[in-house]
Amino acid sequence: MTKASAGRFFEDFELGATLACPPARRVGEGAVAAYLSLTGDRTAALCGRNAPLHPLVVFHTVLSQTVRPVSFNAKANLGYAELVLRRPVPVGAVIRTEAEVVGLRETSSGRTGIVWVRTDAQDDDGPVLSYLRWVMVKKRGDSPTPWRDADAVVPATAPTVEPGDLHAPTRAMTTTGRWFLEDYAAGEILDHPEGHTVTEAEHMAFTRLFQNTARIHFDAVLTEGRPLVFGGYTMSVGYAQALEGLDNRQGLLAINGGAHTGPVYAGDTLSSRSEVLAVDHTAQALRLALRVRNQRGEGVLDLDYWERMPRR
Amino acid sequence: MTKASAGRFFEDFELGATLACPPARRVGEGAVAAYLSLTGDRTAALCGRNAPLHPLVVFHTVLSQTVRPVSFNAKANLGYAELVLRRPVPVGAVIRTEAEVVGLRETSSGRTGIVWVRTDAQDDDGPVLSYLRWVMVKKRGDSPTPWRDADAVVPATAPTVEPGDLHAPTRAMTTTGRWFLEDYAAGEILDHPEGHTVTEAEHMAFTRLFQNTARIHFDAVLTEGRPLVFGGYTMSVGYAQALEGLDNRQGLLAINGGAHTGPVYAGDTLSSRSEVLAVDHTAQALRLALRVRNQRGEGVLDLDYWERMPRR
Amino acid sequence: MTKASAGRFFEDFELGATLACPPARRVGEGAVAAYLSLTGDRTAALCGRNAPLHPLVVFHTVLSQTVRPVSFNAKANLGYAELVLRRPVPVGAVIRTEAEVVGLRETSSGRTGIVWVRTDAQDDDGPVLSYLRWVMVKKRGDSPTPWRDADAVVPATAPTVEPGDLHAPTRAMTTTGRWFLEDYAAGEILDHPEGHTVTEAEHMAFTRLFQNTARIHFDAVLTEGRPLVFGGYTMSVGYAQALEGLDNRQGLLAINGGAHTGPVYAGDTLSSRSEVLAVDHTAQALRLALRVRNQRGEGVLDLDYWERMPRR
Repeated sequence: MTKASAGRFFEDFELGATLACPPARRVGEGAVAAYLSLTGDRTAALCGRNAPLHPLVVFHTVLSQTVRPVSFNAKANLGYAELVLRRPVPVGAVIRTEAEVVGLRETSSGRTGIVWVRTDAQDDDGPVLSYLRWVMVKKRGDSPTPWRDADAVVPATAPTVEPGDLHAPTRAMTTTGRWFLEDYAAGEILDHPEGHTVTEAEHMAFTRLFQNTARIHFDAVLTEGRPLVFGGYTMSVGYAQALEGLDNRQGLLAINGGAHTGPVYAGDTLSSRSEVLAVDHTAQALRLALRVRNQRGEGVLDLDYWERMPRR
Repeated sequence: MTKASAGRFFEDFELGATLACPPARRVGEGAVAAYLSLTGDRTAALCGRNAPLHPLVVFHTVLSQTVRPVSFNAKANLGYAELVLRRPVPVGAVIRTEAEVVGLRETSSGRTGIVWVRTDAQDDDGPVLSYLRWVMVKKRGDSPTPWRDADAVVPATAPTVEPGDLHAPTRAMTTTGRWFLEDYAAGEILDHPEGHTVTEAEHMAFTRLFQNTARIHFDAVLTEGRPLVFGGYTMSVGYAQALEGLDNRQGLLAINGGAHTGPVYAGDTLSSRSEVLAVDHTAQALRLALRVRNQRGEGVLDLDYWERMPRR
Repeated sequence: MTKASAGRFFEDFELGATLACPPARRVGEGAVAAYLSLTGDRTAALCGRNAPLHPLVVFHTVLSQTVRPVSFNAKANLGYAELVLRRPVPVGAVIRTEAEVVGLRETSSGRTGIVWVRTDAQDDDGPVLSYLRWVMVKKRGDSPTPWRDADAVVPATAPTVEPGDLHAPTRAMTTTGRWFLEDYAAGEILDHPEGHTVTEAEHMAFTRLFQNTARIHFDAVLTEGRPLVFGGYTMSVGYAQALEGLDNRQGLLAINGGAHTGPVYAGDTLSSRSEVLAVDHTAQALRLALRVRNQRGEGVLDLDYWERMPRR
């Protein structure tokens, strides 16, 4: 056996196992600047004095920590749910992560399987983030696994994070825009005006910024010349675009569900639209549906999330 | 009316109005490293111990803060004048900006207008930068505006910043080169030897580093496949190239005038030449004309600026 | 004579001369994040709490400081030897460098010569790095130089850094992997599974991150459309790939020898293999041979180095 492992295949996952996700990572000012530079995010509460880490910087760091143990041999990143940011995380935090295997199902093709993991991340002050994610992973061989048909274990997922589970608003919130929580209503549509053309160098640099090493994003030989864009990049670009119309937002609080509905490649031009799904006055939060599309109008990401929006 | 605005068009500008330019932005070590990485700048006084922010980092940050309120729908960035850096700005400063509309003129085409803004930026210690800029902005519609022909308001611009208005030299200046202020003479030409090929990913990442969201730089669909390079990038590349022959320079102090004389696109190779316009022994400053050209020898930037150069 | 010099040609080197290598450079958190983003390195000991600068960040910074005085007109970077990191270098160190010319040989073509330099770098706490490097530099003219045939001065190079010269292990080493020093044996091969496709923007940004201004890396006109990738980038990509199988490594300690055996261009996909050459239990170090190849299987880098690997 060689020490240079090619990562876990579907057969290697054990239900209930807890997987270490090294390395623990210090996320400092350099990552903050690189994130802005690669996404164009301008959220005032996340780039000014004493701004915490961007919630998506925390999420991408944690998710990427799980790539080596979970999704190095992934075929597709299928979804997220029950993602909760526990609190603002300071710049310079050292983030460490564990993932528990909570579901396994072989697909009908017999060549892949779906793995569900519950991920928990901490810094020195305690939990910062947890979520459920499921991903399609290649099988090592052709033999059937125990996780077929009726024997598959598929965890139930909550349709939404409850507003009561969102972390409390900070006392002083940064506002620079005209509209506040009271101005939004369920059903309202925001067409964000910016387009963002994805370059190969940027999507790769973004992916590596978080130490995500999934080969499909970096290797033009493996992907026949078309490395796939990391879904986290699409999410961050869409989120950055969504600022227009949500100028007073304070940062994503939770993800109810997310699905990468189409692949993104270098050269694609992304644009975004948001729909207000709900307004929660107690939590000071908007539930939003973000849809990111490519230049042909094809959806590439649907994200259902809670965003903090202050009251007037 | 949608909350996701497509930005101001020419008709939306009001003479004398002061426009807020959020977000206030903390500019830290990450931006410093990204700037070096994207431009190749090696100015000793700006990358060693206790170096302040690069003056062009301050300028690009401030100018980019004005994009959303002023030039989101710009057709062209026409010029700068009367730009003065008030003092060295420390790494980690939080910079906030306001812009006042001081001139308006509809162009003869009837489809665009020129907007002059006076921009002022501060950090916690007071003013850091001010300048005048004018930019061609699309009109929303075809109806004539009040700012035509004789009714246009065009501010006078000073041909140069007076040496007496440049901030004072710091006591200990960083010198590593052979030539000092006394060695330069008006009329002297410096042909800088470096060439710099612009890549799409780098010019876009540079532009977003400063939170400049002008769509023309990022959107390949909008620009028919040729996103325009942000003029600030051309300026920074030229300034980096100009170090050779000006090794002891301490950093740009003021811009007397600047004009983007031709477009720059990814794939262009830039090179630079400087001419010494004046030597001011009291202010310890050189007035320089920087001309940046592309690989066909076409000028793309003319910059007339004051540079601090220490005495021997 | 113009002040904007085109750099030293072979005729300009004087045996025994010590060359200043400005500017002194502060290497902070921004460079740390950019390095991770461009290389994908995940070495746990180099990205977590209180991690020092990556040894290759120190090396590339120092080598790049020597480009202006030594290799601005280089045709090829031929080799390294006797490279020793004196100790871990903290993030934020200010690094200054000197290079002494210790060898000169005109090549048989009469158009280039080989220059050997001994480089020494310090921060405020003393020496951080020294090494010998040799590089092929263009001649300014056709006239023969004194450094031909028997008159050439070629320094002897030690075949390896002695384990006793490696800096001492730190008390608490960061380990996250399964294998320790005792688990490795000379002759063992590690085939690292990752591929890395090089983009033009990233190799250029990486090169400039270290203020390396060798024109051959940036100028598509000079290089007929194919800027050469900085050898330091290939080294860093290969080193990043080599983590898989060496998970507990603490960072490169010394380079015994290195040779760029083939050119790398944007679009190439790099992959790596390591061979264990020796295991030193006293120094807690592995001697490793890293071979980086391109997508056609052609070798592009051979690196013989010492790596700290803790005991179980």
